Amino acid sequence: MHAESHDSTRLRLLTEAARLVHVLARMYVDDVRNGAAQQYHRAALLLAAEASDRTTYAVVLRSMRVQRALEIPGPRRFDDPYAAAIHDLGEHFRASATPVQVRRFQQAHRAWLAGVQWQIGNRFRGLMPTLDDYVTMRLHSAGGEPTYAMLDIANGAEVPAREMDSPAVCALTEMAILVAALDNDRHSLAQEAGRRQAQQNILVVLMRQDGSPPARAAEDAVALRDRVPRRFLVLRERVLPRASAELRRYLTDLGRGIRGDIEWGLRVPRYLSLGNATAGPGEVTPPERIPWADHPLNTSDEPPPLPSITWWRDDLAF
Amino acid sequence: MHAESHDSTRLRLLTEAARLVHVLARMYVDDVRNGAAQQYHRAALLLAAEASDRTTYAVVLRSMRVQRALEIPGPRRFDDPYAAAIHDLGEHFRASATPVQVRRFQQAHRAWLAGVQWQIGNRFRGLMPTLDDYVTMRLHSAGGEPTYAMLDIANGAEVPAREMDSPAVCALTEMAILVAALDNDRHSLAQEAGRRQAQQNILVVLMRQDGSPPARAAEDAVALRDRVPRRFLVLRERVLPRASAELRRYLTDLGRGIRGDIEWGLRVPRYLSLGNATAGPGEVTPPERIPWADHPLNTSDEPPPLPSITWWRDDLAF
Repeated sequence: MHAESHDSTRLRLLTEAARLVHVLARMYVDDVRNGAAQQYHRAALLLAAEASDRTTYAVVLRSMRVQRALEIPGPRRFDDPYAAAIHDLGEHFRASATPVQVRRFQQAHRAWLAGVQWQIGNRFRGLMPTLDDYVTMRLHSAGGEPTYAMLDIANGAEVPAREMDSPAVCALTEMAILVAALDNDRHSLAQEAGRRQAQQNILVVLMRQDGSPPARAAEDAVALRDRVPRRFLVLRERVLPRASAELRRYLTDLGRGIRGDIEWGLRVPRYLSLGNATAGPGEVTPPERIPWADHPLNTSDEPPPLPSITWWRDDLAF
Repeated sequence: MHAESHDSTRLRLLTEAARLVHVLARMYVDDVRNGAAQQYHRAALLLAAEASDRTTYAVVLRSMRVQRALEIPGPRRFDDPYAAAIHDLGEHFRASATPVQVRRFQQAHRAWLAGVQWQIGNRFRGLMPTLDDYVTMRLHSAGGEPTYAMLDIANGAEVPAREMDSPAVCALTEMAILVAALDNDRHSLAQEAGRRQAQQNILVVLMRQDGSPPARAAEDAVALRDRVPRRFLVLRERVLPRASAELRRYLTDLGRGIRGDIEWGLRVPRYLSLGNATAGPGEVTPPERIPWADHPLNTSDEPPPLPSITWWRDDLAF
């Protein structure tokens, strides 16, 4: 596929490959092997994009876009297995959560899909975002919003809208998402490089933008990342004394989310086996102890000079 | 541009045209002629799509995607005039509305952008959606969500989340949006046909899907549309007795929105001049009286057989 060949032959092969891979993805879905199916769907998207095969691209993307199925209540049939799965999730939430919690999850899920579409769109068009755009995209594409929207469903404790929609709590939620997203960028970099993906990753974005070598970009990325939990802790301390019991629980769990994401990233087989060319996923033993840095790499209280997030440093209403 | 010519020449011309039109759009923005600018931006998108010019396409699309600027609080500078305008709108809302209302508007705006991107994506890929997909897309792309999210900001009366997020009120909001969207489809059909747009319109969708002639498709579209306000009125009557004063005001205003949209569509110069080939916008006198049908075309209480909206007929919790 990567050899030189006549352009039309190459495009025909790419098109056929995209369709085949999509069929494979559907077979894996039928087989309830959803992780594999998602990987195949992503490969089909890339092949269809390279072949400029709009129809296959649209069909594959449609398989991944199922927001409405999440929102429709009551027993329904869906031909699309992704739609059926997410509708089922919606039904479970409607049965066990409040309408406000259900609605929040739906909004979070839509924002996540918007982020993923942005990411796919960049890859499709061969674009590397600026650092500020990347941060905004990652706030959505990382999947943190639907994850944290499940916190108060799991706790059975609905945070009042007046608190949840306040600028301070919106900012705290975003900070928790961005820390985890940037941590995941570090964990997944080797994996993405191995897969020849377009690598929209904080390190690559910094290398492109600043012309930095990898070591310098890695240091800048960690310094940027380390500022975020510092601000998170300060702002949380300011909010907690006046927070309802439900909000206190939510804000505590955001912190646990940051910690939990790090542990997951350092122990999960799919990242662990990256450093070992011969080992498959699951064949590498997770570390017993995780080493933690004693101090943040950056102790500046200045906000990062990024318009999309400098406002986190403002005197935010609560 | 539409004559036969060598493919590469044609593509080069399309590319250059797309870039030129984009520059024109920016000039109109600078000139505070935003309506004209938007039309030029849309034309630039179409030209770039036809030329497979991904970079120009992405740049133009980016000009139209400004969600984050709406969300960032505090005084900021933006190079993108769209971003600056919508940030300004966000600042006004933050100064005059509650955080819950501001957040609702932001979510509504994101959903609207998602709908518009879906619509642009279909056009880019030359796809005509199925009727059920079209209804879902139109619920978002019509712009009804941000419009109605401004109702309780304008009224200075925040509807409690417990009510606003209830399945019954979500359904009522969607019904008000869909009626207006389908009414707009009828008003704008001639205009869109005149512009050689890809015509994602309820009539075209029905003609494609059912193979109907235009007259039959128009009748089916009206019958589908007429069912929606019938259900709206029944469900609203059920909700009103237990509604808070804020919700009563909101639900009353949704009804006024439906009525107001019809009057607007029948009086606004940009639709009125369509039937007259020589008249420009504003040169045709609006009718003094608007004729109303005495009865809906469809008096069935059966829900339309569309999975995305049949649930409106369920016994919805409030």
